[in-house]
Amino acid sequence: MKIVKTIDEVRRQVKEWKSQGLSVGLVPTMGYLHEGHASLIDASHRDNDRTVVSDFVNPMQFGPTEDLESYPRDIERDAALVEEHGGDIIFNPEPSEMYHEGFSSFVDMDVLTKELCGLSRPVHFRGVCTVVSKLFNIVQPDKAYFGKKDAQQLAVIKHMVDDLNMDIEIIGCPIVREEDGLAKSSRNTYLNDKERKAALVLSQAINICMDMVRNGETECSKITDAMKEHINAEPLAKIDYVKIVDLATMQQIPVIDRPALCAIAVYIGSTRLIDNFFSEDI
Amino acid sequence: MKIVKTIDEVRRQVKEWKSQGLSVGLVPTMGYLHEGHASLIDASHRDNDRTVVSDFVNPMQFGPTEDLESYPRDIERDAALVEEHGGDIIFNPEPSEMYHEGFSSFVDMDVLTKELCGLSRPVHFRGVCTVVSKLFNIVQPDKAYFGKKDAQQLAVIKHMVDDLNMDIEIIGCPIVREEDGLAKSSRNTYLNDKERKAALVLSQAINICMDMVRNGETECSKITDAMKEHINAEPLAKIDYVKIVDLATMQQIPVIDRPALCAIAVYIGSTRLIDNFFSEDI
Repeated sequence: MKIVKTIDEVRRQVKEWKSQGLSVGLVPTMGYLHEGHASLIDASHRDNDRTVVSDFVNPMQFGPTEDLESYPRDIERDAALVEEHGGDIIFNPEPSEMYHEGFSSFVDMDVLTKELCGLSRPVHFRGVCTVVSKLFNIVQPDKAYFGKKDAQQLAVIKHMVDDLNMDIEIIGCPIVREEDGLAKSSRNTYLNDKERKAALVLSQAINICMDMVRNGETECSKITDAMKEHINAEPLAKIDYVKIVDLATMQQIPVIDRPALCAIAVYIGSTRLIDNFFSEDI
Repeated sequence: MKIVKTIDEVRRQVKEWKSQGLSVGLVPTMGYLHEGHASLIDASHRDNDRTVVSDFVNPMQFGPTEDLESYPRDIERDAALVEEHGGDIIFNPEPSEMYHEGFSSFVDMDVLTKELCGLSRPVHFRGVCTVVSKLFNIVQPDKAYFGKKDAQQLAVIKHMVDDLNMDIEIIGCPIVREEDGLAKSSRNTYLNDKERKAALVLSQAINICMDMVRNGETECSKITDAMKEHINAEPLAKIDYVKIVDLATMQQIPVIDRPALCAIAVYIGSTRLIDNFFSEDI
């Protein structure tokens, strides 16, 4: 397992693999890896001959008031985890390697990115699409792995790949949770003990939704009202959104009569956490 | 030489070539090919084992009041020209093959695209960047060929490829001219006899610029004033812009003290024509 800092070196290595007929998987991450990321690396290791894990806190997907500076980083720990799970390279470039002076191009879309997280994070998905496009062009993987926890990101990337004819298969992998149900996230490290406990309202609200859908409830406002009521009972929680949307468009729907996504974003103290549930996973 | 209508078939053919270790050149065009395009195909044929010519009038790069419908098309004539110059495939998709229902992604940039033609054609370069990205992803060529006549387009594409780490070499080829100096363009077919004669003011103005630069003139306003005076003497001509810009930024400069581009756009009757001169070509 090798830590690689430059685009040229990743390219050289991947080309060597491809000339040997080996398949390549890519796991794009912002580092500070946890079991959620590990499950993506496992999936790539299972499907491909070689796996590249990118480990890059992408400035372009953070808004001016967001947590770019404080976002947790630990490349040594990340390297150990990648090695343990069978990754072959960590690509860990400096921001100046990815965004040289005069950088000004971007990839974006007119739909999908304006809803849900796009409402409270207006530049976020432009940053995601752009950095993922760059990583795809640098690594040219056969397959790329993304967690279903970032459900909107997964939908946006699939849409981008389809629209722009990128020759890459996108694999969405299930959410990995703590034992008590909290979805794994690098941002969970921001939580103090009280907040960590309060954060359980997210997965509990998702469970409320899953139970109601399993019991045949299809009226979205009934479901989201029950979820909101549960979250609002926790004094440390402040809802950003609780929505049920068409999975294909990310537009809110009144009734679950097609593949849908129930997605929530909740501030626990000053930490913004997300969780979700795909109706097709029932 | 084969006319191919689907993305899948181009992909299949290119993959077969690549598995044989053959290099591939791409010449993106909007069809109605002339000697300018032929020179690009020649260059690709010289440099690569196989050449794909795309022939697609891209709706996304036309504004709502522009000449999308009337843009000239003749795929049979194009096919003969591509075959004659050693091209292996014409990729001639229907708009619905390139832009399926729900298409909404785009590639764009914050600089370069807002100046010159970007001022009078605000959606133009977004359409160019998006379709060229798609063609690059479909064909995955080693090299791609663009005419220097579309100087800003060439600069924009080079910038995009560099920013987004596309693994493709971009080759700019010299302007090809009619015997009397008019730059070859598919839009020249719009001109009636009187207009065809009047259109000579473009290349004549470029010659004025070249002569002044050769004679040591560096003050841009002096040069552009002389060019404008010449163009304005022609009653059928109406200037869109006559500018000297920094080649790296497309921003106007007062003095030619770095690699510069002298670019002009002039309406002859209702037909908008462009011409230019790269200071580095002197």
